[in-house]
Amino acid sequence: MRFGRDVYRACHLIGLIAGLAWATQALAQTDPLPSWNDGPAKRAIVAFVNITTDTASPKFVPPAERIATFDNDGTLWAEQPMYFQLLFALDRVKALAPQHPEWKSKEPFASLLKGDVNKALAGGEKAIAEIVMVTHAGMTTEQFEGIVKDWIATAKHPKTGKLFTQMVYQPMLEVLAYLRAKGFKTFIVSGGGIEFMRPWTERVYRIPPEQVVGSSIKTKYEIRDGKPVLVRLPAIDFIDDKEGKPVGINSRIGRRPIAAFGNSDGDRQMLEWTQASGSGRLMMLVHHDDAAREWAYGPKSKIGTFSDSLMAEAKAQGWIVISMKHDWKKIFSFEP
Amino acid sequence: MRFGRDVYRACHLIGLIAGLAWATQALAQTDPLPSWNDGPAKRAIVAFVNITTDTASPKFVPPAERIATFDNDGTLWAEQPMYFQLLFALDRVKALAPQHPEWKSKEPFASLLKGDVNKALAGGEKAIAEIVMVTHAGMTTEQFEGIVKDWIATAKHPKTGKLFTQMVYQPMLEVLAYLRAKGFKTFIVSGGGIEFMRPWTERVYRIPPEQVVGSSIKTKYEIRDGKPVLVRLPAIDFIDDKEGKPVGINSRIGRRPIAAFGNSDGDRQMLEWTQASGSGRLMMLVHHDDAAREWAYGPKSKIGTFSDSLMAEAKAQGWIVISMKHDWKKIFSFEP
Repeated sequence: MRFGRDVYRACHLIGLIAGLAWATQALAQTDPLPSWNDGPAKRAIVAFVNITTDTASPKFVPPAERIATFDNDGTLWAEQPMYFQLLFALDRVKALAPQHPEWKSKEPFASLLKGDVNKALAGGEKAIAEIVMVTHAGMTTEQFEGIVKDWIATAKHPKTGKLFTQMVYQPMLEVLAYLRAKGFKTFIVSGGGIEFMRPWTERVYRIPPEQVVGSSIKTKYEIRDGKPVLVRLPAIDFIDDKEGKPVGINSRIGRRPIAAFGNSDGDRQMLEWTQASGSGRLMMLVHHDDAAREWAYGPKSKIGTFSDSLMAEAKAQGWIVISMKHDWKKIFSFEP
Repeated sequence: MRFGRDVYRACHLIGLIAGLAWATQALAQTDPLPSWNDGPAKRAIVAFVNITTDTASPKFVPPAERIATFDNDGTLWAEQPMYFQLLFALDRVKALAPQHPEWKSKEPFASLLKGDVNKALAGGEKAIAEIVMVTHAGMTTEQFEGIVKDWIATAKHPKTGKLFTQMVYQPMLEVLAYLRAKGFKTFIVSGGGIEFMRPWTERVYRIPPEQVVGSSIKTKYEIRDGKPVLVRLPAIDFIDDKEGKPVGINSRIGRRPIAAFGNSDGDRQMLEWTQASGSGRLMMLVHHDDAAREWAYGPKSKIGTFSDSLMAEAKAQGWIVISMKHDWKKIFSFEP
């Protein structure tokens, strides 16, 4: 049995190598969330993953049903001094101004072109809608994708000077990767424009276009010069915010999430919908309470409002509020 | 170097076993489409898969972009004597009739309840819309899912006496499995109701709810007895047919398909949209030309119209028309 013994020995060796590889991997995996401080938020994530992925757990969830949804603005990337998509729209107004001499005397464009953003946005939702429509509609989906790609590759954040895709939260990138490693399918469910996000979410978050749910405008199929195109129309199709989030989740995903992450009143219904999908669910809210490293805002902020009533509901329902100040060791990946 | 040589020998042995396993697998894989007769349709599918998945091919497509879309009615399952969803609606009218005494004297319900389906549907789209709304709206999404699941588990096809989920085309199940084995993501893009399909597409086609695109009615988020629900409203949200198919693909998937399968004029724009996404694309149309084993219908059929102009476009564009009679060895999996 010399051959047999040597085969055994050889296999043992192979086993040893495999074992070492495993140990190295296990070591690397001991902390899947290195940018999180030890605390209730981090522990809640790990505990949730354990109870839903351990086949022996009474709260085990089959891989196909492991749906996790993430708001984008203020949850995966920053949203100050204003939604980045609005900064994109303002840049577009400037770029398009030469073709629109009438904007010089027409609000909200006139103020905007004079550099007075506050005055331009004083018109509220109507002003914003006007800006969005002239900058987001009237071209094909392919043309719009190209415009977004160009902007996202070059435009810089007004405060940090970083690319907007660098303004993503390192701890949340770790949550995304951790969940996916445990068989979860990660989705964005954002009030932001779906076609503003899709050109870069795969590269930045590893979330493919088909897993992005967002607000949208209508499109129309046309043949132009013998080639089919989808033309973006100046008409709202769907607003994926507040009550719209469960509606969007149902219509686009067709399954109830078992984990949901948000940061504002716009995410309340998504978290309620997730919680009601069964027991052993994870609902989390990022709280912007770190003026030194990011921004501190909440109940009185126009952008990313985290109202007192949301805080009360979080407490009553057992949703976990993530303190950026205390729970996050690092906020942006570009930090040392 | 005795140890080294024996390790080599052992590894050789392991390699041999692995090789055998591979050969067995390869043998099993020699024909991924056993229910297809050898012919231009089958060869086109295999050739397409080879050129898009071979890294050495100039038409190689990365796995993330391997999107294949399938119409449902008449492409994956049968659609005669009428769309199965309409048969479902008719059954629902009968089930709901006791709660609606007024239907006895109100069309289209009166004729329907007397068993005169033709007269009931004589009112055309308006009559159908009325039937769909009373049977598909006015309940929560969870309630509707339960109704569909009960019906699909028990209702029988009026001609074959089989469950509707048995009325699926075996050759198409093989195409779905073959494409997925080659790294494709398979989507349904159907004019049918999305929430009529999702409760069973995973079990029957291995297509999960999040990969089903279809027509939909509006829903509304509400808290009922302290529990969040989505209520189905009697209002059209989206019609995923004809020009709507590229619109739905863009809004729900966000990527251009590289393969598309349909069977009627309703699929024309989806195939055009797919073809225009690049070279080395696969566009196929199932042609119902087998009166003996299935149904033979085409240009004059109200359901699943395959017009002469579609046939002309298919020929001009090089789309492959699948003859059920000649290309399919077997149609339904229940056949011997």
